[in-house]
Amino acid sequence: MTGSSLVFDISKVSGDKRSSCDDHVAVEEPLEVQLSSKTAGAAAAKSIYITMRTPGHDKELALGFLFTEAIVSSFDEVSEISHTGESDPDSGLRNVVRIELKPDIDVDVGRLQRHFYTTSSCGVCGKASIEALYVTGVRSLKNKGATYGRELVATLPHKLLEQQRLFSQTGGLHAAAAFDEQGELVDVREDVGRHNAVDKVIGTLLMHNDIPADNMGLLVSGRASFELVQKALVAGIPTLIAVGAPSSLAITLAGKYGMTLIGFLRGSGFNIYTGAQRIS
Amino acid sequence: MTGSSLVFDISKVSGDKRSSCDDHVAVEEPLEVQLSSKTAGAAAAKSIYITMRTPGHDKELALGFLFTEAIVSSFDEVSEISHTGESDPDSGLRNVVRIELKPDIDVDVGRLQRHFYTTSSCGVCGKASIEALYVTGVRSLKNKGATYGRELVATLPHKLLEQQRLFSQTGGLHAAAAFDEQGELVDVREDVGRHNAVDKVIGTLLMHNDIPADNMGLLVSGRASFELVQKALVAGIPTLIAVGAPSSLAITLAGKYGMTLIGFLRGSGFNIYTGAQRIS
Repeated sequence: MTGSSLVFDISKVSGDKRSSCDDHVAVEEPLEVQLSSKTAGAAAAKSIYITMRTPGHDKELALGFLFTEAIVSSFDEVSEISHTGESDPDSGLRNVVRIELKPDIDVDVGRLQRHFYTTSSCGVCGKASIEALYVTGVRSLKNKGATYGRELVATLPHKLLEQQRLFSQTGGLHAAAAFDEQGELVDVREDVGRHNAVDKVIGTLLMHNDIPADNMGLLVSGRASFELVQKALVAGIPTLIAVGAPSSLAITLAGKYGMTLIGFLRGSGFNIYTGAQRIS
Repeated sequence: MTGSSLVFDISKVSGDKRSSCDDHVAVEEPLEVQLSSKTAGAAAAKSIYITMRTPGHDKELALGFLFTEAIVSSFDEVSEISHTGESDPDSGLRNVVRIELKPDIDVDVGRLQRHFYTTSSCGVCGKASIEALYVTGVRSLKNKGATYGRELVATLPHKLLEQQRLFSQTGGLHAAAAFDEQGELVDVREDVGRHNAVDKVIGTLLMHNDIPADNMGLLVSGRASFELVQKALVAGIPTLIAVGAPSSLAITLAGKYGMTLIGFLRGSGFNIYTGAQRIS
């Protein structure tokens, strides 16, 4: 994973001491996602998304984003994923990923330009944001998924930290991971953006034909927002566990779709916000 | 600040104990920002941005966003800022803010649809992202701004925490604050999104005619990304202090424009990434 961290020369202040030293810093660089389809003409690759990300698992990130935004609905629709564009002369990084769809796959790129959070019934509100997901085909996970013992849940943050290679270097990255019914972490992904880390995990699951991932849980190192619950729901993951706090809309969304949402997982304690029946 | 937190009934797990209790949670709801100008016809308000935010200081958020994205260049261009749209029947919240510009103010709304991170010289890369800012008129802050003693810097996180009313209730919010030359916090703003908290602070400074804020510093509770450095630069703030880690591109951008960037501010220690001359 070349190019995920860089060394800077810094001044370190500690009490009344000041010294120069090297510091490892997480890389942040733009990534452009392009989509090309035969229906749009072979040569017409359309730029549809730019995100600031930490290099590594770029293809999974691009695929995970398109999938969780309901632009692409399965890995079968994809004919090829490749890096393109010029390499950065200094880092050698390539910051464009092109996803080529199979012939005659019809996509709704316009979704990204439209507003997901508005309906005619209540205008702009959380309720409308939740209803918009139903329109894209998201369905309840109420009767899906495994149950987990509380001891198993409590071990997850330590396992995640052990595998956060970049975090241990830089102290500054979000992480996300899928975990199985035994609480083993399946895919650990890191990024400066928490949504990117989750897109990388879901893109990996999709490439491995593991979606809907109703036998998995999703663990995130930070807080649980509406957006993260949405991404887990689209991937069919019934349990989302956050080390940090959830937002109100994350809880409401998780509850509405029968998902288990856990927050503030620290030491041997945690809060169960919705779907307590999955924790034994 | 009605509607900024909500109480949920949750299950709390602590070791082998499990109990029901009430939990205060930070509210997350969509906010739509509309722009109306006479040049576009009086009746034509254009929806240009939707963000998930914590209600409170919505007008400052909308204004700060438009300013830091270089859509609006001063508060003088604004004739009125108002909540509009229907109230949510449950919460009474109104989730649309309309900014009306004075007659004959010409804005470049298309900026938001175009890609800021691309140039013809190197395509998509951090360097291009930095150059794009120069095009919008951002200039070096090298010879601007106050100097701060290291003891003053070390007191800032405690001051911030003391004023984070919602964080103390919910444990789950970002905060940002402007601080003056004596290290007093001027405007403290909280939000589920760190970019929103910064937009709220900068929108407030703009309303008070305090921009360019070259006598101020900006303090953020989390990490320092490219986006946060960009916002501080556009507001002319020469010093950005983050409790968490900076990214590589945040450091490069801050260095290029003569800004002081501090990270990992914990206890009496911190790291100075750029502009060490401002810390005495």
